[in-house]
Order: sequence, then C-alpha cells, then structure tokens
Amino acid sequence: MNGAESVVRTLVAHGIELCFTNPGTSEMHFVAALDRVPGIRPVLALFEGVVAGAADGYGRMAGRPASTLLHLGPGLGNAIANLHNARRAHTPIVNLVGEHATYHRACDAPLAMDVETTARPVSCFVRTCEDVRHAGSDAADAIAAACAPPGGVATLLLPADVAWTPGGRPGIPAPRRRPAPVSPAIVADAARALRSGEAAALLLSGAALAPDALETAGRIAAATGARLLVDTFVPRLARGAGRARVESIPYFAEAAVASLAPLRHVVLAGTRAPVAFFAYPDKPSRLLPDACTVHALATPEDDAVAALDALCDAVGARHATPVLEPRGEAALPTGELTPASLGRALACLLPEGAIVVDEAITGAAALLPATRGAAPHDWLALMGGAIGQGLPAATGAAIACPDRKVICLEGDGSAMYTIQSLWTQAREGLDVVNVILANRRYAILQIELMRVGALAPGQTPGARAQDMLEIGRPDLDFVALARGHGVPATRATTADDFAKQLAAALATPGPHLIEAVL
Amino acid sequence: MNGAESVVRTLVAHGIELCFTNPGTSEMHFVAALDRVPGIRPVLALFEGVVAGAADGYGRMAGRPASTLLHLGPGLGNAIANLHNARRAHTPIVNLVGEHATYHRACDAPLAMDVETTARPVSCFVRTCEDVRHAGSDAADAIAAACAPPGGVATLLLPADVAWTPGGRPGIPAPRRRPAPVSPAIVADAARALRSGEAAALLLSGAALAPDALETAGRIAAATGARLLVDTFVPRLARGAGRARVESIPYFAEAAVASLAPLRHVVLAGTRAPVAFFAYPDKPSRLLPDACTVHALATPEDDAVAALDALCDAVGARHATPVLEPRGEAALPTGELTPASLGRALACLLPEGAIVVDEAITGAAALLPATRGAAPHDWLALMGGAIGQGLPAATGAAIACPDRKVICLEGDGSAMYTIQSLWTQAREGLDVVNVILANRRYAILQIELMRVGALAPGQTPGARAQDMLEIGRPDLDFVALARGHGVPATRATTADDFAKQLAAALATPGPHLIEAVL
Repeated sequence: MNGAESVVRTLVAHGIELCFTNPGTSEMHFVAALDRVPGIRPVLALFEGVVAGAADGYGRMAGRPASTLLHLGPGLGNAIANLHNARRAHTPIVNLVGEHATYHRACDAPLAMDVETTARPVSCFVRTCEDVRHAGSDAADAIAAACAPPGGVATLLLPADVAWTPGGRPGIPAPRRRPAPVSPAIVADAARALRSGEAAALLLSGAALAPDALETAGRIAAATGARLLVDTFVPRLARGAGRARVESIPYFAEAAVASLAPLRHVVLAGTRAPVAFFAYPDKPSRLLPDACTVHALATPEDDAVAALDALCDAVGARHATPVLEPRGEAALPTGELTPASLGRALACLLPEGAIVVDEAITGAAALLPATRGAAPHDWLALMGGAIGQGLPAATGAAIACPDRKVICLEGDGSAMYTIQSLWTQAREGLDVVNVILANRRYAILQIELMRVGALAPGQTPGARAQDMLEIGRPDLDFVALARGHGVPATRATTADDFAKQLAAALATPGPHLIEAVL
Repeated sequence: MNGAESVVRTLVAHGIELCFTNPGTSEMHFVAALDRVPGIRPVLALFEGVVAGAADGYGRMAGRPASTLLHLGPGLGNAIANLHNARRAHTPIVNLVGEHATYHRACDAPLAMDVETTARPVSCFVRTCEDVRHAGSDAADAIAAACAPPGGVATLLLPADVAWTPGGRPGIPAPRRRPAPVSPAIVADAARALRSGEAAALLLSGAALAPDALETAGRIAAATGARLLVDTFVPRLARGAGRARVESIPYFAEAAVASLAPLRHVVLAGTRAPVAFFAYPDKPSRLLPDACTVHALATPEDDAVAALDALCDAVGARHATPVLEPRGEAALPTGELTPASLGRALACLLPEGAIVVDEAITGAAALLPATRGAAPHDWLALMGGAIGQGLPAATGAAIACPDRKVICLEGDGSAMYTIQSLWTQAREGLDVVNVILANRRYAILQIELMRVGALAPGQTPGARAQDMLEIGRPDLDFVALARGHGVPATRATTADDFAKQLAAALATPGPHLIEAVL
C-alpha cells in the first residue's frame, strides 16, 4: 500500500465519505487511490474556491468533515478565502494538499511555494507527511484536529514521493473528542445574571442554533425575560414557523450598538462577545456597552447544548413556554421585484426542510425578516465575510443532504467569485435553486463608502469611484452564464415572474438559476 | 492629505499609471483617493485572480509595475496563484492590500486573518503601514522593492485607519536600481566554455529574450557553434520571422534530459540551471547531465543584456550572422481542427506586433513550432505553472499595449479558473482574441497519470479517476460563458471555421472569444 492509499483508507476508516477535488500532477497517485478504494466519493470542481466552499457547506450540514484535494501552493491559494470562511464557521475540513516530492523541493521548481506558511493562517493544524510509514497516522491526526471541538480546517501536505512509495498503513481512528463540559459555577453565574432583574440577553451561535437547543434557550428567555439573540452571521440556524423566535444582531455597527445599549448582562453560548465587522472612524469596535457584563456560559469549544440544558434547570425554565415563530401569511407577491417581495415569494414557497444559503449581502436585510414564518428550514450565512462562498456552500450542502431542497440567495457581485460552482451542480445533478439578486452593483460598498467617511456628507462619489462600485457596463447575463455551465436558467423582472419561476424550479429536480433583476 | 492619498500620490510620482482593483469596505478611502488624484487609472475586476494576473501581463509588457488593490486576507488569498506566477516571471507588481484598522485587529473580527503571513510566500517585500506619517515612504519602499532587479511582488498592507487619518505625505522616488554588472572574469569563463570545442549551449530567459539581446545571442551561437536554448516557459520572448531561431527546452523531463544529454557546457543568461517541472519516480529532478559544467554568465538579478554584449565581443562574434527564422508558408489550413491546424491558421493570420499569451498547456506543443515563422510577435508563457493566468494576463497586456492585438491561447480547463477576465476585457474594450482550446478534459493530467506511474503500463484509469480528469459531462459552452460576460463569441469545429473566425475577430476592435472544439 503506497502513502496515498494509506491516507485514503484512513479517511474511509474515519467515516469521511467525500473528497472535493481539483487535482494536478503531484496528486495523481491520490487520484488513483480514490479510484481504487471504495467508500469515498470524489467530486470534481473546476476551481479550488469551489472545493473549499463546498467542503464548508457539506461540513455544516453533515456534521462531519469532507476531505479536499488541492494542487500545491497555488491550488491552496485559490482555496484560502473559503477556507477562511470555514474556519470562522468552525466547519471541520480535512484539507489535503499535494506537495512536490521531498527531494524535489530543493530544486525550487516553477510551482514550488512555501505551502505550510500559506496554509497556517486558515488552519488549526498544518503538517507535511515526510515519511510514508507515518502518512496514515498523520492523516488520522489531521482528522482528529479537524473534528476537535469546535471544528476546524486541518491541512495535511502530501509530497508526491510519499504518496507513491510503498510502506503505508492506515491510521487508527482516535476516539472523537467531546466538547468541554461547563462547570456548575459558570452555570450558576449565568443564572444569577439572568435573574438579576437587570436587562439581559442570551447570545447564541454554533451548536446552540440547533432546534432543541434553541427551544431550550427560548424557555430560558421566556422564564427570565432575557432577550434571545443570535450572531449577525450564523453557521446554521434552525428557523421558520414553530422554531424559537430570535433576534439577529444588526450588521451595521451603529444599529448593533443601539440595539445592545440597554443590556447589562449578556450570556454567551457557543460564541464570543460581538464585535463590529469593520472599523469606522469614531465608532466603537466592540458592540456591547461598557456597563454590560459578559458571562461566557459556553465558548465555541464548550458543550453549549448541555450548558443551556443546565441553565434551563438552574433558572427553573423547564416548563416555560418559549416564543415560537408563527406561520407567516401565504400570499404570493405581485408587482415590483425587490428584496422584500422576493423574500415574500420565498416565504410562501420554501419547502419544509429546505436549506437556505445566504450570500445576498445587502439583500439579506429584507430576506431575513420576510422568511421568519416560512416552513421550518436551515439558514447558512457567510461566516468569514469572504464573498464567493454562497454558490459553493450550496453545492456542498446539497451533496450532504440529497433529500432536501437547497436555495442559494446570492448577490450578483458575490456570485462572480466562484460561479464555476454551477458546473459541479450540473455534473452531480444537485437540487439547488440559485437565486441571483442582480442589482448590477456592489451595493454594500456604495453604502460603506459613505459610512467610513471617505466622502463628506451629501457628497456623491466621482465617476471613477462609482465605476469601481458598479458592475454594470456591461451587465452580466446570468442566464447565459448558467447555461454555459450546464445549468438551466430563467430571468425574472417582476415579483410575479419570480414567484412562478421559483415554484417551477423547486418542482423540478436538478439545479436551476433565476436571475432576479432588482 | 490622508494616508490613502499619500500612497496614491506616491504611486503617481513613480510613474505607476494603473491600479487593478477589487476593493472592499476597508479600501474605501483608497478608492476615494483614486477618484481624486489624477494620473492613475483604476481598472475593476470581478475576482482577485484577474487583478493579479492582469498586473502580471501588464508588467511584462509595460516593463514597469502596475499596482493592485485587494481586500484583506481573503482578497489576497484569491490573488495568490497569479502572484505566484508573477513572482516566477520576475514581474514587478506593487501589491496593495487593505487591512483592518490597527486598533480593530485585536477584535479578531470575522474578516481578520494574518495577512502578512499569507503574503510572504509570494512577495519579495511585505510591510504593514503602521503610521500615516510613513505611509508615503512605505509605498516608495514597496515600489523600489518591486522594481529592484529582476523585479518582484512587493506587498504593502494599508490599515483602514492609516488610510483615513490625515498627516500623510507622498514618498520621494528613489533612483531606480540597475541590474548588477557582470565581471570580465565571468565573461571570459563563458567565452572559454563556448570555444572549448565541447558541446555547449547558451540558455536564455528574462531580459535576454528581447529582440536585440536574442540577436546578440544568435551571433554568439553562430560564431561558436553553441546551441541557442530558451527556458521551457518564458516571461516574454520576441519570436517569429526575422527573429533569432531558438530551441525551447522540452516540457517533459525525459525529453529534456535526452535533448540536453550531449551538453558539456551551459552558459546561463537571465536564468538558472533547468529543473524538471515535477518529480517522477526514477527520473532526475535536474535536467543537465552530470558531465555538464554550468557557467552563470548572468543570473536573473544581473545585467544579462550587457553580459551577452560583452560575451559577443569576447568570442569575436560581432560580425557573425545569426540564424534567423524565415517567414513561414501562408496557406490557411482546412479540414480537421487540431492544435496543429489551429497553429497554422494562427501563423498565417497573426498580425505583426501581436502579443500571444500562451496557456494552451498540451496544445502548446503543436502551437509553438507552427508559429515560428509567423509575423514578429511576443510570446508570454505561464511562468509559475499555476493555471488561470492566461485570460487575465492577456487582459493586462492589452491595457499595457492598446495599439497591439493580443491573442490568448487558452486551455478549456485553465480558462475556468479566471473566466471573469472576459468581463474586464468587455468593460475596457480591449483588443483581445481569446481562443479556447476545448478538448473537454484536463489532457495534461491524463498524460501525467501514466507518467508518474500511478497506473501500471497498459492499465487504463478507472471510471472515477477518469471522471476527475475530464470536464465534459456537461460540456462547458464557452460561447454562452463569453456572452454572459459581455464578450461576443463564436464556435469553430473545423480548421476552415477557425481561420475565418480568427480573421474576423482580428479585424474587429474589442474583445472576442472563439471556442475551438478539438
């Protein structure tokens, strides 16, 4: 058994069933091993940003890692942005990168690069297999690192000669590490804070966003009067009719600060104290008021579900009635197509158990409230802020959950970073409806240009600045782009069109794209 | 003057006229400065791989750096692959990356990443502006580093607060560093080697590939009987009818080794001793025979042009007659469309002064010999092996040379890493004819799978391996993809079609794409 096969067999032994891949010459023995060893499915992407984003979407929905296969430093480079997003979502990924043969590195061949250094900023674990005898155990260590709570990107470099040399043996699965338990003293502290009579909130992310944990949190909130908050961006939130009602922290720092200003206590479960996405002149970076005490009930590494359970008992909320979202109205929108009317159509038509991948950027402000009362669904957001995650994450989520419909809400600007995802959707016949919110500009940047004070109040941007913020001239034709990748597509310019096209797309197996012209 | 403006004014003062950009919130003050300060042209790209590849193509043709503008670590990540290619081509690039405000970094906001570490593997210079008073001089230092021979990628991080704070002043242009002169002893050693009577070659790259330097090298070869070699991949080679005839070192290691085996002396000008692109079991990494002495007449850092001039005198070759390429036949091909017939059409139709960007991968083996005798042109190859460089480099080259036609020869697999380049070509109205060599597979990998010994001789790859090497199922429709980006396109399935479409595209201003179905 060569090194490549020992790594593949280690993946399979650990229950890793997927390998998102864009291989090159140095990975050919790994490709041959994927061909030979049953139990793992290779899924090809045309670009490594799709590989990494798909592994993120897959990991969030499957709750276990996919593996990747990338080609040397440049292949890793192309994956960095979406590995960053996965790191921020605490998605487990076993990130395999081919490397030049150990003895070839000294030649500084054209493709040679410092791959370990490139990997480090996005990885919780980086190692190069230097010896075929340890390739399997190195892979087992990488898998353990990826799965260690809260989950992360573990990068393993496999030199070509280690891959092709005989003498490998599969690594032994280690017992899976459980999240750290939370001490009774910490639970008691959080309970005291919530019962203090002062304005308090529970702030959730990670495992605390699953249906049962959310309902427990809802009981705690109902019993104590605490607000129930979730982070602005969530890795996977169970929402819709019948799910606990939550408030999202607003994206813009000034709105977040205003919303959080009354709080005197915040109890964190599965997250950290909130910070502003960006810095702005004369605005704070930390969003909680100085007078607010932070109670870290459960960090992302801790067992947030058990901690909420213990807290529920500690505040006597076991039989409290949480506030649940009611089912929204079911009238399909007509007239102008806007993010709001698009959201209403979505709220009506979203099938139960749908997975919504949200990279709508400015559009999300209207889409989130519009879909509160939709049929129960999961909502996956952009955790690291690196745009170009939506289409690939939807691709990976559809592979993880072939029995569920995936709807990807995607800004036109963001779509263009990883548009190649559509081809993998077509090749794999995935049930993804990609909705492109086409406003022909980087709308968020037009807002931010003002907010950061780059222009004086009332000043309008000059032609050259405007040109850097608009992506018309020429307009992108997403219907043509989708067809070019093998995905059927339609264009909607009214709410009526959109609702009809969405209903038809949801009723048809396989991928579809709707260009929603706003 | 704020920090952003001081950086922009420093760029302009150093003659940097271009900024390829894909900005985000942290770069808004820089965008406003680009808007305000005359003398620098922002060119928007939809993806950072296009930004970096365009800066590479621009720098190779303009002989001076463009600047870039990237958004934080993920924006830099998306540019890594083409920055790697630029590094290998020694292309000067002033690579500007926005960073979170200095005081915001401690918050570990969602987009925070270790940007300096990410930049280091592809950069000859990395610095973060920590103080607005030094932003201008930091930029001047970055420009000096990018332009220091042989040229490189200088990365400067500009934190948002440094960009928006007043108190900046432009950096003072430093005198441009000249390449290092070559000592007479080294020239004499090279002259002795070439006159030794033993089999010898001159091996050229970098500045030695310009028309006059090549002709000088041709005289030396004619006078001494040395072979005239160029690296397999060249940053910019002056070739075609009337240019000195050169031999390219073959791509595949075994062919290269066979070709170089007779040599006892190699004189290097502007390059290093050749190595294999990849390692293969039981094949050497270094391509020259052990019995061959390497004479480093001029390293990439040295003045290769002056060194060749001195060598020409030292071997008494001043009046020797170099072997020049004759004009090829001018019969347009008919019948089957293959890389060879495509090359013949190109050879007939290539206008004088054309710029050919070659990322045809397996196709190049036929295209290079077919176009030897075409009208004089420049040939730009993929220096770092990171595919996805062709379309962006063609974009940048067209901006550098608006009076010349650019022809991009692009593999279908490679095209899909940075297909967004087409939109920038459409927006800027660039004279680029993009020829997609569509064989519906990663043909190079089908060859390499065998060559690395991942399959036994005669064994055919299994269905799953084959599936990772083919990009049909579904076929990409490049005509639709081009139209989606705003570029007119046609499809050719015969050599006659192709020749007609190429002639028409070359006669029409603005970008065009031809999908050449092979």
